[in-house]
Amino acid sequence: MKFLHLEEQLSREEIKKLQLVRLKSAVARAKKSPFYAKKLKGIEPEDLKSIEDVKLLPFTTKEDLREHYPYGFLTVPKSEFVRLHASSGTTGSPTAILYTENDLNTWADLMARCLFMVGVRKEDVFQNMSGYGLFTGGLGIHYGAERLGCLTIPAGAGNSKRQIKLLKDFAVSVVHIIPSYALHLSTVFEGLGINPKDFNLRIFLIGAEPHTDETRRRIEEIYGVKAFNSYGLSEMNGPGVAFECEYQNGMHIWEDAFLAEIVDPVDLTTLPEGEVGELIMTTLAREGMPLIRYRTKDLTRFLPGECPCGRSHVRIDRITGRADDMIILKGVNIYPMQVEKVLMSMKEVGQNYLIELYKEGHLDQMRVKVEIKDEYFVEDMRVLKALQSKIAKNLREEILITPRVELVEHNSLPKSQGKAIRVIDLRN
Amino acid sequence: MKFLHLEEQLSREEIKKLQLVRLKSAVARAKKSPFYAKKLKGIEPEDLKSIEDVKLLPFTTKEDLREHYPYGFLTVPKSEFVRLHASSGTTGSPTAILYTENDLNTWADLMARCLFMVGVRKEDVFQNMSGYGLFTGGLGIHYGAERLGCLTIPAGAGNSKRQIKLLKDFAVSVVHIIPSYALHLSTVFEGLGINPKDFNLRIFLIGAEPHTDETRRRIEEIYGVKAFNSYGLSEMNGPGVAFECEYQNGMHIWEDAFLAEIVDPVDLTTLPEGEVGELIMTTLAREGMPLIRYRTKDLTRFLPGECPCGRSHVRIDRITGRADDMIILKGVNIYPMQVEKVLMSMKEVGQNYLIELYKEGHLDQMRVKVEIKDEYFVEDMRVLKALQSKIAKNLREEILITPRVELVEHNSLPKSQGKAIRVIDLRN
Ligand SMILES: [Zn+2]
Ligand SMILES: [Zn+2]
Repeated sequence: MKFLHLEEQLSREEIKKLQLVRLKSAVARAKKSPFYAKKLKGIEPEDLKSIEDVKLLPFTTKEDLREHYPYGFLTVPKSEFVRLHASSGTTGSPTAILYTENDLNTWADLMARCLFMVGVRKEDVFQNMSGYGLFTGGLGIHYGAERLGCLTIPAGAGNSKRQIKLLKDFAVSVVHIIPSYALHLSTVFEGLGINPKDFNLRIFLIGAEPHTDETRRRIEEIYGVKAFNSYGLSEMNGPGVAFECEYQNGMHIWEDAFLAEIVDPVDLTTLPEGEVGELIMTTLAREGMPLIRYRTKDLTRFLPGECPCGRSHVRIDRITGRADDMIILKGVNIYPMQVEKVLMSMKEVGQNYLIELYKEGHLDQMRVKVEIKDEYFVEDMRVLKALQSKIAKNLREEILITPRVELVEHNSLPKSQGKAIRVIDLRN
Repeated sequence: MKFLHLEEQLSREEIKKLQLVRLKSAVARAKKSPFYAKKLKGIEPEDLKSIEDVKLLPFTTKEDLREHYPYGFLTVPKSEFVRLHASSGTTGSPTAILYTENDLNTWADLMARCLFMVGVRKEDVFQNMSGYGLFTGGLGIHYGAERLGCLTIPAGAGNSKRQIKLLKDFAVSVVHIIPSYALHLSTVFEGLGINPKDFNLRIFLIGAEPHTDETRRRIEEIYGVKAFNSYGLSEMNGPGVAFECEYQNGMHIWEDAFLAEIVDPVDLTTLPEGEVGELIMTTLAREGMPLIRYRTKDLTRFLPGECPCGRSHVRIDRITGRADDMIILKGVNIYPMQVEKVLMSMKEVGQNYLIELYKEGHLDQMRVKVEIKDEYFVEDMRVLKALQSKIAKNLREEILITPRVELVEHNSLPKSQGKAIRVIDLRN
């Protein structure tokens, strides 16, 4: 069996046809919610003659979700919902996504399909190192793995020694892990004198934070696995929106469930295929809380060409950052991912780094603290100075300004057990 | 609809018949596992002529689970399992329970039945304040609530201010919470100047740690809810083993799924009905990992008489402690629950206390630190001295020795966000 679901085999033509049908019913359904009843006033499903007519529809933003929290987007009575995930934040306005039983089913199916696509099978033992609870990464992937029939270990985040014990005792073959934690965990393995390659590990599912291909290759090298990039966001259920296939050449978006567009983040016009812009998503299969043209703020592009795996679902490039993450320094736009890309491609650099923005007089400055591997952290100051200069020079080539570089010892920067904090802004 | 499942209406006769059938098949199935193949050698299902013949079967202990970790108890191939829960502990031998898809289904059904019994309905909004992950309290109750169709909020443990925000924003009616955390959370409400009675709260599910009826009444009073005691342990799936009904007069054990006995914890002989002893449990409905006569180490008794709710499933009294928890001090046996019972019945006592055991010369001593409510924590030393003496005297009446009593300010003892630590042993 090559595909888990029939939908994976649709041709581009069939996908577009299905999308139009589903977009129409998504619009009809959305209009049952207080928010869209107003927002979509005057727009009827039959106004959509082709899938390109999605442009006739207005955008939905995170601010809309906040302002109409908690029930403004619901299309059926509250009692029909069986799950709620909410953004954290005790102050400020949170956002919440509510799911009907059908929605949970659809989500679990999409997630199972992702897992199957990268080679996960019923016989696999799957350890989920994602935090459970309100964060969708835990329960989302959990339900998918159980649906596929994997022995699922709900390990949750943190507690590295216990993670390693479970990996060993149950001969775990598949792991869901945040990339920065995968790098951190490797230093715990090191400290214990254990080589993860001696374990039964086969597949890592990584994602939930932007990372570079250099980071992925490192993780694959350390653990002796294939590591697959994934994309999801709680507004679109959570994980299970897009996943790499065995070819690791971009992430297939499940276009039977989501309609994706790439637009200019400033003027919101559709960009030509291949250009980087903001990803816009419409739910095509969500019953209780459909979202129309949701602005993800994530920056990526559609990848051209066909994928050898046989799926014609469009592929997106890895997320290069969030529209919100952009650092403006001395008039130059910089994404943290650019810094990571440079650092992770250098063999001397360890598994952690930190970008600090600060003021020197009135001038904005950037300092990059870089963990150096033990074998390169020598006593000879001249060697260290040379390494420092090399890193600064490589960074300059990528980001066009020269940051201050500080070399720090392996394992000396704050460890992350959740999403890594890569940028600290000390300017205010 | 009064009952969720037909099994709840069985008469005693019918229960005993069903139990015998299921016990036979549990034995037959257990013998497929490496552990029981040996342990039950020479015993055949047909040797069991009546349910009382369960006494012919050997006991199973936590040590057995440890020694045959991780796969010694499995009756089907590992690939048939879809879930694993494990005890924590990075050192020492852990224990693990594995579940097939059928086992998860049975568990969710039992759990939904518990929730329905205390009055939870599809229309309720349910906030689960239990930690998720490897601990069964999170996912166990979660699956039951979703099965019943409640809007389920997987809030997880801790983060009290966020808990309160969710309770408010979603008009939560049902909460699963550890009793000591319920008491702690009330002090957070107090600090915020919010009265939880102004919320939509209706039902609290408490359990996961032994507590007294006095603690329950306090929780009910503070939150304006009915609070239902529950019993479960991961070796018997997790939560959903026994639950109070609307009459709050003991916890019905689901005898179609579990066979319960009470034995003398020392000589392991069956005790007459009504006597307190160790609870012994046999799984009657578990497919992948049946356990025969498992020694729970929990102390309780069967309650006599019929329950007005119409369910004839036997009721157990609240757990008075664990065989392991017993404190031996100056030759007297003391259970921490006895101390709690005394303290929580005194109006001056706040929501937290701590028992410390220490040495004075060669003598074992007990110190009880007791939080006092603000309005009783007056400046007049004579009043405080009198209160101190009163607490010591009340304790003496219950536990037969006079502990040293220390009055401390409201909110000054370490807070618990998980199971409370009530006893600290400083003797070694
Ligand atoms: Zn592909
Ligand atoms: Zn009853």
